[in-house]
Amino acid sequence: MTIKRLARLVLLLAILFNAAISQADEGMWLFSDLPEEHLKDQYGFEPSDDWVEHVMLSSVRFNSGGSASFVSSNGLVLTNHHVGASTLAKLSTAEHNYHQDGFLAATIADEIPAPDLELNQLRSIEDVTDRVLGAVTSEMNPTEASAARRAAMTQIEQESLEATGLRSDVVTLYGGSRFHLYCYKKYTDVRLVWAPEFEAAFFGGDADNFEYPRFCLDVCLFRVYENDEPAEIEHFLSMSDNGAADEELVFISGNPGRTERILTVAALKFQRDHSLPYVLDSLRRREILYQQFGFEGEEQERLSRDELFGVQNSRKALTGRLQGLQDPVLMAEKEQAEAELLAKINADPELQEYAAAWLVIEALQHRKQEMLGQTSGFSSDLYNIANTLAFMAVESEKPNEERLRTFRDSARASLEQRLYSPAPISPELEIAELGDSLAHFVELRGGDDPLVVQVLDGKSPQARAAELVLGTGLLDIATRRSLAEGGKTAIDEANDPMIELARLMEPESRRLRAISEEIGELERQAYAKIADAIFAVNGTDGYPDATFTLRLSFGPVRGYVENGRQIPPMTTLGGAFEHEASHGSEVPWHLPPSWHERRDALDLDTPCNFVCTGDIIGGNSGSPVINRDSELVGIVFDGNIQSLVGNYIYSDDVPRAVSVHSSFMLEALRKIYDAEHLLEQLGL
Amino acid sequence: MTIKRLARLVLLLAILFNAAISQADEGMWLFSDLPEEHLKDQYGFEPSDDWVEHVMLSSVRFNSGGSASFVSSNGLVLTNHHVGASTLAKLSTAEHNYHQDGFLAATIADEIPAPDLELNQLRSIEDVTDRVLGAVTSEMNPTEASAARRAAMTQIEQESLEATGLRSDVVTLYGGSRFHLYCYKKYTDVRLVWAPEFEAAFFGGDADNFEYPRFCLDVCLFRVYENDEPAEIEHFLSMSDNGAADEELVFISGNPGRTERILTVAALKFQRDHSLPYVLDSLRRREILYQQFGFEGEEQERLSRDELFGVQNSRKALTGRLQGLQDPVLMAEKEQAEAELLAKINADPELQEYAAAWLVIEALQHRKQEMLGQTSGFSSDLYNIANTLAFMAVESEKPNEERLRTFRDSARASLEQRLYSPAPISPELEIAELGDSLAHFVELRGGDDPLVVQVLDGKSPQARAAELVLGTGLLDIATRRSLAEGGKTAIDEANDPMIELARLMEPESRRLRAISEEIGELERQAYAKIADAIFAVNGTDGYPDATFTLRLSFGPVRGYVENGRQIPPMTTLGGAFEHEASHGSEVPWHLPPSWHERRDALDLDTPCNFVCTGDIIGGNSGSPVINRDSELVGIVFDGNIQSLVGNYIYSDDVPRAVSVHSSFMLEALRKIYDAEHLLEQLGL
Repeated sequence: MTIKRLARLVLLLAILFNAAISQADEGMWLFSDLPEEHLKDQYGFEPSDDWVEHVMLSSVRFNSGGSASFVSSNGLVLTNHHVGASTLAKLSTAEHNYHQDGFLAATIADEIPAPDLELNQLRSIEDVTDRVLGAVTSEMNPTEASAARRAAMTQIEQESLEATGLRSDVVTLYGGSRFHLYCYKKYTDVRLVWAPEFEAAFFGGDADNFEYPRFCLDVCLFRVYENDEPAEIEHFLSMSDNGAADEELVFISGNPGRTERILTVAALKFQRDHSLPYVLDSLRRREILYQQFGFEGEEQERLSRDELFGVQNSRKALTGRLQGLQDPVLMAEKEQAEAELLAKINADPELQEYAAAWLVIEALQHRKQEMLGQTSGFSSDLYNIANTLAFMAVESEKPNEERLRTFRDSARASLEQRLYSPAPISPELEIAELGDSLAHFVELRGGDDPLVVQVLDGKSPQARAAELVLGTGLLDIATRRSLAEGGKTAIDEANDPMIELARLMEPESRRLRAISEEIGELERQAYAKIADAIFAVNGTDGYPDATFTLRLSFGPVRGYVENGRQIPPMTTLGGAFEHEASHGSEVPWHLPPSWHERRDALDLDTPCNFVCTGDIIGGNSGSPVINRDSELVGIVFDGNIQSLVGNYIYSDDVPRAVSVHSSFMLEALRKIYDAEHLLEQLGL
Repeated sequence: MTIKRLARLVLLLAILFNAAISQADEGMWLFSDLPEEHLKDQYGFEPSDDWVEHVMLSSVRFNSGGSASFVSSNGLVLTNHHVGASTLAKLSTAEHNYHQDGFLAATIADEIPAPDLELNQLRSIEDVTDRVLGAVTSEMNPTEASAARRAAMTQIEQESLEATGLRSDVVTLYGGSRFHLYCYKKYTDVRLVWAPEFEAAFFGGDADNFEYPRFCLDVCLFRVYENDEPAEIEHFLSMSDNGAADEELVFISGNPGRTERILTVAALKFQRDHSLPYVLDSLRRREILYQQFGFEGEEQERLSRDELFGVQNSRKALTGRLQGLQDPVLMAEKEQAEAELLAKINADPELQEYAAAWLVIEALQHRKQEMLGQTSGFSSDLYNIANTLAFMAVESEKPNEERLRTFRDSARASLEQRLYSPAPISPELEIAELGDSLAHFVELRGGDDPLVVQVLDGKSPQARAAELVLGTGLLDIATRRSLAEGGKTAIDEANDPMIELARLMEPESRRLRAISEEIGELERQAYAKIADAIFAVNGTDGYPDATFTLRLSFGPVRGYVENGRQIPPMTTLGGAFEHEASHGSEVPWHLPPSWHERRDALDLDTPCNFVCTGDIIGGNSGSPVINRDSELVGIVFDGNIQSLVGNYIYSDDVPRAVSVHSSFMLEALRKIYDAEHLLEQLGL
């Protein structure tokens, strides 16, 4: 099963993107605009308003980048191990490596506070399009339009924050054609309850990532607190008795991060020929960097592991995406669809004016190409803190509406939580990251560039990085606070080398940011027109591209055919042991000792992982998979490799969402991890 | 000893390139022009003509890229395991993995023929500068000059081949200021005698590569044959009784591949800002490719391992080189030296005309920058075979002097040995390599480039690669022969997809080659002038940049100071076991079972690896280290990380050549590998 043969490879490649595409269950739907007719016609399912509200309020967003759900009345939050991984890494030390070895709080008192997590529960959605678009007049140039829109958004958010006390974000939808106000209850006291061993959660490692069949227990439990007590949660998902079944209709409620299905052909070609190759070069560079750093020793391996897996995951995902774009057949499909749409627009006198938007997008790709590699940032937590402080000092002196959005009053609490995070920062890893980042900066601009000469200050990138990291006081949180409170004077007078570097970089950062904003604004205007044109031609029966806001996807649990071979919809716990044995138990196919100790007690027929056709993308990790009775039947943790092109185009033919089956989690909690107290809280 | 602490890192970086540079033992000297005065003054050593001739004739070049020496009268050749690795990989199968598990021929009859090795013994050196330069007149444009010089070189080589029967190569020295005819006796029947396990040869893996202290048994033995019998060898190196001693003067006789010490500042900046970053991106891309391929299974890991280590080695070496160039202090030194030289030239009316050469080099860097990424090649053995056949068909129809140098008559035998090599080619690995290479081609030129569209033929890069590899008949050596013998007609009529691709690419290959040749010719002319100017200013007491021809380096066995810590000149066999234990025996710090079985019998005080100040670079791998009595005392296998900048500048302060001590090899042959019969042949 796991040995990939040549023939399979060849046929896989042929099948990969050429299959006829049916779009039956396409869509990452807004909770305020669900495809009710399709659900009724296709599945005979009519979700009640209560059903929708219950699912929405049970869903949780990890602001660090992921999805989750409430699963008990006393605040238990279920997500993926890999969504919790950055927190697990921050909580780990050389003595207690929770990321590697797992963790189980025996009692509520043993639960460990996460240093800087913010969890969001979506409370309401309001269409504020008219107010945002009303702030922009046709006489405004792009910079003015952007500022006016930003001011309107900030004002709406500020008003909402004051009125409700909720985190209030205006979200740009349909490429800038619609604006919705999303209000969230925030949880910032979040504690670790349980995580299995890394070997169980990421069984098969980078090699099995994006592959299927899979056997990963990629889950962990946190708990939200209020006033130092477990929060009381009204809406949470109950566990299904049996979990997901083959061909059962299931729903995925989560926060897909970003899709680009609206992109024009010109924009896709920019991605194919310039943007993705550039980003992939950078990712491979960082992958090698972290690998090499990890070679230095066990502690270094621990420090860089979470970063390494994140980079590997992105590299593999973007490689798949680029392979999709490099397929002439896929591009020809996109070209044909665009040509047909443009033909309809050009044939209709009332729509003709929209056609220019495609030309604007095309022209902007050339400007974006010039911007590639014109970066002013460095990979270093300490530098990013310095940079935030330097910007904050200047921005805070401006009226709220005129500030960069990161620094608006309504976002201040979230910003400060990150800025004053007690999460450990390793100077050694910082030196490696910043040194490489400075070296990349030299490569991108050339060693004789005046800014490069100033940045290096006569030293090699590696020596300069060491000087900066060892010389800064920003490891100390009190120092950050005092610099933030001291405002512009404190920043200007600081003789901290990292602050000095951030000050040196600030004009260039603002210059590049201004160009990006102008391009972004022109793109937004053009894509808003394109979205309007699509509405006009196809009607409004659509969904917007993903924006890391709550969406509902759905589709049946269903296997697929790959290389003429039927891939079953589910794996079993017994299959995990077989998968281990077939790889000689070698890392990364090595299950944790706890599993082997309890093997005899386990029901090896327990469903393990399963696939369904639901439309997902990165950010959906940790999303609850829900049945018609709004019970939790699984947790999304991956897509198969064929789903990666979903950034541009959906198909339910071979692409699949991959989930942990709820029965697998319960069997493990009960028989491997002896977590009866948690099962009880889960109502089992 | 092996745990690298932060403080060490920081100081290392500070020390790395800023140390005062003494150039006491700089030089990769021509055997025809040794620094006799320096050796006499500095070391009181006056090598006799016999000494020089004996060392030269005992030295061996691996044409696959490495150095070696004869060590017995019956043809034993000693080199590095990593020089023999590509052959070990070619001889290995899923059943017998000699690369991993090692090999020992119990008798001469058990020695295994290498599929395509060519070993060279340098027999004579003749200065043919006047004849080569005499062929070029001042009226000729670069293309004509290049052709005339090439014709002269080809004619000299052909005459020499006919007169002596020896492989005859005209070598370009001093950037094109001098030309020497090197004649070699060729050995093409080369058989594997002994290789230790990979875990012994590459102990510490990529992590320890370019590091010191080290503990690698990076050696293996081949034997050359003539007429199916072990060749009788007159000049070979005897083993020293005690091997190298601390502070002893030692000589390194080998073939350094390439240095670039003559480069102007403009050329160095092109390397820093454009060429090296581009090459490193490509290397990291290939590193990830081979890693991912190796994940597919044990057999895939075996198939790609040698390629992976080669790529990792290059990536690490070039990263070190780029770090050197990015150090403003090193560049300032180079700038100052160049400014001083130019001041002298400009002050001397007879030399002033030479100054223009620096401007020519600077102008050429812009053209080289435009050429970066304009590649017409693909990473695939089968494609390279097709490409060679397609070019050969056209070139063979031209008179010998007008052909591309690869296809001249005097090089035909070597070319055919490679072309008809029975070394196995894995279609699966070929598909992965060619698929990635095609994808890179799309990235570099853009998916809409007409040649890209033709090359992909409507398929994705991966699908197209599979089609080409599975469709070609070139796996079959007889097919290659018949296409070669059929000449242009056979190539034109072949409906082999790989040949068709090579034909499609041929015009673009020739176009790019013509531009490269023109640039190369102009560079050669300019560097020849620069070399002449340096001769005029500094006298002729120098050595030319490395050209993968035999050179002699020398210097004492000597430790060094790194981060205030004294690094001893030698390690011991016992240290290898300690190094293993300090890394918990984890891969790549896992010594082979054979070592543990025999541990009690071993003398743990045996010297293991050692360092000396001799001037080396890639290509020197496998070079014999020789004492004043022309006995073999070690085998070079690496440089420390500080030596990597030696491509541009030599120092004997911290940079060191790293060698296997001869006593270590003998102890292992005797007590671990039970190779008494080989020790006997070695005269022990």
